Amino acid sequence: MSALRIGLLGHGTVGSAFEALLAAQGERVEQLTGRRPEICGVLTRSSGDFDQILERSELIVELIGGVDDAHSYVRRALEAGRDVVTANKQLLSRHGEELWELARTRGCQLGFEAAVAGVVPVIRVLRESLAATRIERIHGIVNGTTNFILSEMTRTSGSYELALAEAQRLGYAEADPSDDVSGADAAAKMAILARLAFDVPVRIDDVRFEGIEQITADDIAYARELGLALKLIGTAERLSEGISVRVHPAFLNASHPLASVGGSFNAVTVESEAITEITMSGPGAGGPQTASAVLGDVIAAASPARARGQTAVGPVAAAVSAPIVHDVVCAFYLQMEVADRPGVLAQVAQQLGEQGASIRSVVQRGLGENAQLVMVTHPLLESRLATAIEQIGELESVRSRPRAIRVIDEEFE
Amino acid sequence: MSALRIGLLGHGTVGSAFEALLAAQGERVEQLTGRRPEICGVLTRSSGDFDQILERSELIVELIGGVDDAHSYVRRALEAGRDVVTANKQLLSRHGEELWELARTRGCQLGFEAAVAGVVPVIRVLRESLAATRIERIHGIVNGTTNFILSEMTRTSGSYELALAEAQRLGYAEADPSDDVSGADAAAKMAILARLAFDVPVRIDDVRFEGIEQITADDIAYARELGLALKLIGTAERLSEGISVRVHPAFLNASHPLASVGGSFNAVTVESEAITEITMSGPGAGGPQTASAVLGDVIAAASPARARGQTAVGPVAAAVSAPIVHDVVCAFYLQMEVADRPGVLAQVAQQLGEQGASIRSVVQRGLGENAQLVMVTHPLLESRLATAIEQIGELESVRSRPRAIRVIDEEFE
Repeated sequence: MSALRIGLLGHGTVGSAFEALLAAQGERVEQLTGRRPEICGVLTRSSGDFDQILERSELIVELIGGVDDAHSYVRRALEAGRDVVTANKQLLSRHGEELWELARTRGCQLGFEAAVAGVVPVIRVLRESLAATRIERIHGIVNGTTNFILSEMTRTSGSYELALAEAQRLGYAEADPSDDVSGADAAAKMAILARLAFDVPVRIDDVRFEGIEQITADDIAYARELGLALKLIGTAERLSEGISVRVHPAFLNASHPLASVGGSFNAVTVESEAITEITMSGPGAGGPQTASAVLGDVIAAASPARARGQTAVGPVAAAVSAPIVHDVVCAFYLQMEVADRPGVLAQVAQQLGEQGASIRSVVQRGLGENAQLVMVTHPLLESRLATAIEQIGELESVRSRPRAIRVIDEEFE
Repeated sequence: MSALRIGLLGHGTVGSAFEALLAAQGERVEQLTGRRPEICGVLTRSSGDFDQILERSELIVELIGGVDDAHSYVRRALEAGRDVVTANKQLLSRHGEELWELARTRGCQLGFEAAVAGVVPVIRVLRESLAATRIERIHGIVNGTTNFILSEMTRTSGSYELALAEAQRLGYAEADPSDDVSGADAAAKMAILARLAFDVPVRIDDVRFEGIEQITADDIAYARELGLALKLIGTAERLSEGISVRVHPAFLNASHPLASVGGSFNAVTVESEAITEITMSGPGAGGPQTASAVLGDVIAAASPARARGQTAVGPVAAAVSAPIVHDVVCAFYLQMEVADRPGVLAQVAQQLGEQGASIRSVVQRGLGENAQLVMVTHPLLESRLATAIEQIGELESVRSRPRAIRVIDEEFE
């Protein structure tokens, strides 16, 4: 049978790893698909011609990154009837709806397992295993860099700056880490997961995100006293008014399945009434891991069971768009410096109470004439918490504006 | 388009749950497959006619259980060119090779996600996502009953008998629990996982298994002092001499991804050089969960992308059979009652040393004139450990034959 002709766009870490993996596993791919894979052209920023490569290929692997060029290449490949496999979360979180629709109308495959959580097979599980399950909520640790930094801060009790430097030294963080530490990278991935889980259009602009740059060693130390672990958590959930997709640092109860996911690993928990919950975890990035996810998609696209011209296996067409909810209910950890004298806790509790929030647990510790006051609230609307924080910050006996970090606790959510 | 005609064999817990789920999700199934599902016949032990149901159906869902009748039904359905979805691990661990071959030659789908770990999508991930990954090892908690019992013993510090009674009261264990607690159920599931992971024929007779009936509250208490958690673990691994598939109670280091899987949950860890490891966990059984896995397979089989007459998506044909290795290297926890006097530990250590085993950690605790001696060894061949146990049991200062439980510790394996 003829060779499976693959055009490769991009030859960085993942592109090179994919080429090496394909060479090592060529025989296995042939056994599974009936066809021997071969790379018939490589496009880099400085060499290769896209049109020639497209002409020669029947499947395009897009690992060149960025948005604009990648968008043009993927669109042209699908328009020309080529299957496409991409690891590009930014592309899909901005132009996914257009590209999925194009794949459907042209009967092409558009594989993107590698775009979210690397080798953790969350895309396939959402698209196939859970296709008929009404998903209520997804929680994910979908950025390995920030999970490494927070794990390192927990392990060493050190500062954010020191942990970031260690992540950079070990290659877990870029020289410019802002895309990761700001939560933007995780937001793009959560937009894709929400689109798959809820079958409504979700773009990156619909996702609110906060990063980990403001997290201190104190936050982690106090939280540990309260039996909580700090993670950068992406959440996508159905609410009665619409859907909410957001990324922010959050404390997890130690019994939460994501609480023990350490180092640069990624993990995703999918909740549904029918299945309770399933959790998947593994390495979220790294050249060989991402390449492995790309190869899985290449095999699926090339398998004879998925005949060309049949309906593409992709997200079903999106339903009418759902309202995006921006103000959601959440429990909060609050930390502030207060005057160490009687009655301060009562004043703070009163301000919270006026916004409908009660206090779940408190730790207070003296520091000479001031004290550190740390508390966890019961859930309340984020907007009401913001109002409470303003008012608490104005109390004469409160020395610092309260720091607030969300708490995810299955027990009372 | 015409209805998707499903013949349902079995109407117990899972069969009824499947029927209810199909009714609730019919519209969604139609959206995904283009066809409205309908159950066109139900066979129970007391009613229905298989030939009539087969005649009317294009897809058979086998949830009747048992081996002989189910074997006959599934074979006849595949011979008649019908797709089949089954949750029957006993059937596949005995007759899988024949049935998969039949599905391949007839171009039928044979879905069996629900046969192992319920809604945890380990079958799909092994068959598809990791199809081109050379898997080195699988560790699994694949029996929810035993995991519940061991979790309960850990939580309450109570006996096996009390925890079993609680599991029966809550419906996690059958009135006759022997298939679960003996490890036989887990052995059938590990045979299926090993077949998929290594592409060699593995039958249930190739799987050694031990159950949890002999585990005592003391074992769990001492292990906790050593920082270990006790689970019934299934292992399938490649060794230089062949493959080993086995099920036995094992202590896990607290940092192992399976150590924190509690209650009746199932979980599977897949290790490979290319991907490091991925872990999947979730509810392993229960009517709605198993029905959800069955429905996922029904949708996959009915999807137009998987055109009838094309190669079935199933395990590739098995390679020539691999040698099954029965004597493997493992670390052990040993517990024995000894005379509380100097020199006893040295005698025990000497016997272990003669078999090539050194001691990793020791806890000794006096009980009047006797003492409890608990130790964890470095890894050694199981056969040599058995020899050492015989010899230690004959020492004059050792009051009881040592109890031995395996230890899985990523740090030194």
